[in-house]
Amino acid sequence: MFLKNGWYCAGWMHELDAGPIARRMLDMPVLVFRAADGAAAAVQGNCPHRFAPLHRGTIAGDTITCPYHGLVFDRGGRCIHNPHGDGELPKNADLRTYPVIESQGVVWVWLGDPALAAETPVVDTGFVVDPAYATVFGYLSVEAHYQLIIDNLLDLTHPAILHANSISSPEYMGEKMHHRFRQEGQVVHSDYLFKDVAASPGLAPLWGDRRTDVRAMMALYPPSSLMLDFRMNEVDGPDDEGLFLPTAHLLVPENERRTHYFYAMGRNAAIDNRGLDAIIADVARKAFAEEDEPMIRECQEMMGTHDLFALKPAMLKTDVAAVRARLLLDRLIAEEGGR
Amino acid sequence: MFLKNGWYCAGWMHELDAGPIARRMLDMPVLVFRAADGAAAAVQGNCPHRFAPLHRGTIAGDTITCPYHGLVFDRGGRCIHNPHGDGELPKNADLRTYPVIESQGVVWVWLGDPALAAETPVVDTGFVVDPAYATVFGYLSVEAHYQLIIDNLLDLTHPAILHANSISSPEYMGEKMHHRFRQEGQVVHSDYLFKDVAASPGLAPLWGDRRTDVRAMMALYPPSSLMLDFRMNEVDGPDDEGLFLPTAHLLVPENERRTHYFYAMGRNAAIDNRGLDAIIADVARKAFAEEDEPMIRECQEMMGTHDLFALKPAMLKTDVAAVRARLLLDRLIAEEGGR
Amino acid sequence: MFLKNGWYCAGWMHELDAGPIARRMLDMPVLVFRAADGAAAAVQGNCPHRFAPLHRGTIAGDTITCPYHGLVFDRGGRCIHNPHGDGELPKNADLRTYPVIESQGVVWVWLGDPALAAETPVVDTGFVVDPAYATVFGYLSVEAHYQLIIDNLLDLTHPAILHANSISSPEYMGEKMHHRFRQEGQVVHSDYLFKDVAASPGLAPLWGDRRTDVRAMMALYPPSSLMLDFRMNEVDGPDDEGLFLPTAHLLVPENERRTHYFYAMGRNAAIDNRGLDAIIADVARKAFAEEDEPMIRECQEMMGTHDLFALKPAMLKTDVAAVRARLLLDRLIAEEGGR
Repeated sequence: MFLKNGWYCAGWMHELDAGPIARRMLDMPVLVFRAADGAAAAVQGNCPHRFAPLHRGTIAGDTITCPYHGLVFDRGGRCIHNPHGDGELPKNADLRTYPVIESQGVVWVWLGDPALAAETPVVDTGFVVDPAYATVFGYLSVEAHYQLIIDNLLDLTHPAILHANSISSPEYMGEKMHHRFRQEGQVVHSDYLFKDVAASPGLAPLWGDRRTDVRAMMALYPPSSLMLDFRMNEVDGPDDEGLFLPTAHLLVPENERRTHYFYAMGRNAAIDNRGLDAIIADVARKAFAEEDEPMIRECQEMMGTHDLFALKPAMLKTDVAAVRARLLLDRLIAEEGGR
Repeated sequence: MFLKNGWYCAGWMHELDAGPIARRMLDMPVLVFRAADGAAAAVQGNCPHRFAPLHRGTIAGDTITCPYHGLVFDRGGRCIHNPHGDGELPKNADLRTYPVIESQGVVWVWLGDPALAAETPVVDTGFVVDPAYATVFGYLSVEAHYQLIIDNLLDLTHPAILHANSISSPEYMGEKMHHRFRQEGQVVHSDYLFKDVAASPGLAPLWGDRRTDVRAMMALYPPSSLMLDFRMNEVDGPDDEGLFLPTAHLLVPENERRTHYFYAMGRNAAIDNRGLDAIIADVARKAFAEEDEPMIRECQEMMGTHDLFALKPAMLKTDVAAVRARLLLDRLIAEEGGR
Repeated sequence: MFLKNGWYCAGWMHELDAGPIARRMLDMPVLVFRAADGAAAAVQGNCPHRFAPLHRGTIAGDTITCPYHGLVFDRGGRCIHNPHGDGELPKNADLRTYPVIESQGVVWVWLGDPALAAETPVVDTGFVVDPAYATVFGYLSVEAHYQLIIDNLLDLTHPAILHANSISSPEYMGEKMHHRFRQEGQVVHSDYLFKDVAASPGLAPLWGDRRTDVRAMMALYPPSSLMLDFRMNEVDGPDDEGLFLPTAHLLVPENERRTHYFYAMGRNAAIDNRGLDAIIADVARKAFAEEDEPMIRECQEMMGTHDLFALKPAMLKTDVAAVRARLLLDRLIAEEGGR
């Protein structure tokens, strides 16, 4: 079950700069490309004639040419040329089109009712384009239902265990952890303060080894975009000074069992030191791809095709944000009439 | 859904010369071997006792010995020896047998009602054994429903796009393409004339680079054998002189999602130049295995398990032969009572 | 369909000495480990909170720490520590525990009603720990239903065909084979005598090449543990002298299509010649992994998901033990109410 009425990340703007993007999203093939005027356009990813994958064809200027029989479509999805026979255009051969927005580094696509797109804002990913930050990017294909990843991200008690040797440490729990859950409209906030803790090994290149107050404020914007406001402050110091590592976690269900996971991590320190980029990218990759991804995938394997709640899991108080996010998504999906 | 009453290619005669052939056809295991007198015999491919694959056993003279417990069967499928205990023969232990014909290079098997086999002729593949032609052979296992491959072969508008750099060229369409569909009895003909076009890059070794009239006459003999009469003639010249490349495309459903694809391509030029064989075989392999197969497989992936018509595809006038072939097969399958 | 009330082999004791064992058994994750006092304990293999695989966590002394959020469980499965927030223990967070017995080299686990475990003896695998024998061990993961392997083992007519060049020979059948089936309580015995036959090639390193009377007495202890009393005696000599190769075949359904196959082969000859171990291990591996396993797997492929009886197989008189074992298991499974 997916929420169709919502903005989903189809990729990064720099990825679209490099060429068309073909991705399966909500179990539908989607093709995003830049038209002749440079604007992004999004259409269904296969041809209505024999369902050939359009990204294997020629995408040039405002037209897409199918790789199988050469039908040509314009940027609005209309079939405008049939190279065969008398050239009569086939009926019902137009591509579905999707609203698309490029904003602050992200290409967003709307797969639901187009009438609702205009009134729905996209998520603020301003740090990505803010010159005060240097940002590294990543992508994972995770063999798990997207809600398992939302569970993971809204619950920042797991890092003290799972990321104890990378982006967290065993100190980041118990009495040192302060958690506040709040829901504002449809945004689920899960805010953490880790008071007077050791710096994590992974972030030593940026912070050194002195003790710190860590603030990690995660917010879920439905359907499945999460923004983390991460700060390392001096102990008892102000929270608007220090090392800021804002991070976007943008999830898109590929299907019921696989998820696209786009992430970007900014930093407000040593932003001109491009040599640090590879180090920070590796810290993020290690934590997300080598620690989170295998764990989430193995949990999914253990769960089989069952829904989490159907398995009657034990609940911790610290699960409150993840549980509320599930209830919110369940309600939104039910309201739009299911898939 | 398969048509059972029809001749299917189990392999080439030279393949059977080299040893028994074990193949899954219409989702049933089939074993074809030469008996002591050299004649082909076809039986079910697994033992009725514990369903062991008989091709792993010993096939010698007129007997097949099961590799698991040693039951012996004669060429007529009868269980004639039980090596264990008192040697009593088990009941209901005979193998199903299938009518088989060797004809003009092809081993044909009949998997339906045996009574109907005798009255049904096999397809004429005479060029394969005609000394006026040199022939190369190939085989593909295609992860797609067999009807997607029939669609591909009856529609020769796709080569101008998909094979533009191999066995066709972008000129082979539009006004230069003349198409005639006709059905004669149960044979669906799809005849193409490409008038005054460039020679394709792939066939330059045989034809050179002078312009040509290309005739490509494809015929489907149900269930799924297709014969292509391909000719390159001088522009405005007679159609019975020039380069002839008759090609057999013999399809057999392995199951609902995978197809055996046997092909043979003959040529009437430079037939004693065996060095050309590898060049021609590579031209065919490139077109069928590297261009057609990935396209058909990806279309199948896009379609999932849906039938083509259920997806309400857009239709081109040039689809007429493929559509009529689907309607014909649907009717024949319905008439024999489905699978 | 599995029999839950029965002892299943979770592994060898020496495997458990080396560290915790995590295995899927009867389609459930099971974790076996040694507690602080050295005794074996068996619990469900995933955490009740988010179903993380516990063997990825820390297992030390009497506690298991979940690798995802750090919940701690004691050897009795009780959740005893929550490191987060106020540390309140979650409800319904205890692990299922399973009776476990270490006996004569084998770790046995009981996955059914615990009340029935105490009254059920484990199988006697005494040779494994008997100083009069040297023993080699092996493990296979077989992609087949466990009953196909029971069929294989209770029927020792197949070796004369399938293992003709390894642990049997073509002489081991027909008039030279004497078979007796008997059922004692719930134990199915299938006893074979091969009278005055050649030694098998595989066992020549132990027996040489003189002729022999071979006794092979297989017994199935439900659910799926089989013990083979294998003896090579002098022709017409006493049956309590000669080469003894007792062998345990301990099967555990991983799921409906895959089976854990543990085996151990003892010998009463040259027991101090450890160099022979590798030779004997290779003889067993060749027979079980290279001859039996592919045959059983391919039979399963041929059968698809069908039950053997549903396919109405031909029956041989020598199938009597295998058939009776199937009827016995069917009855026992029905009596405990199916899975």
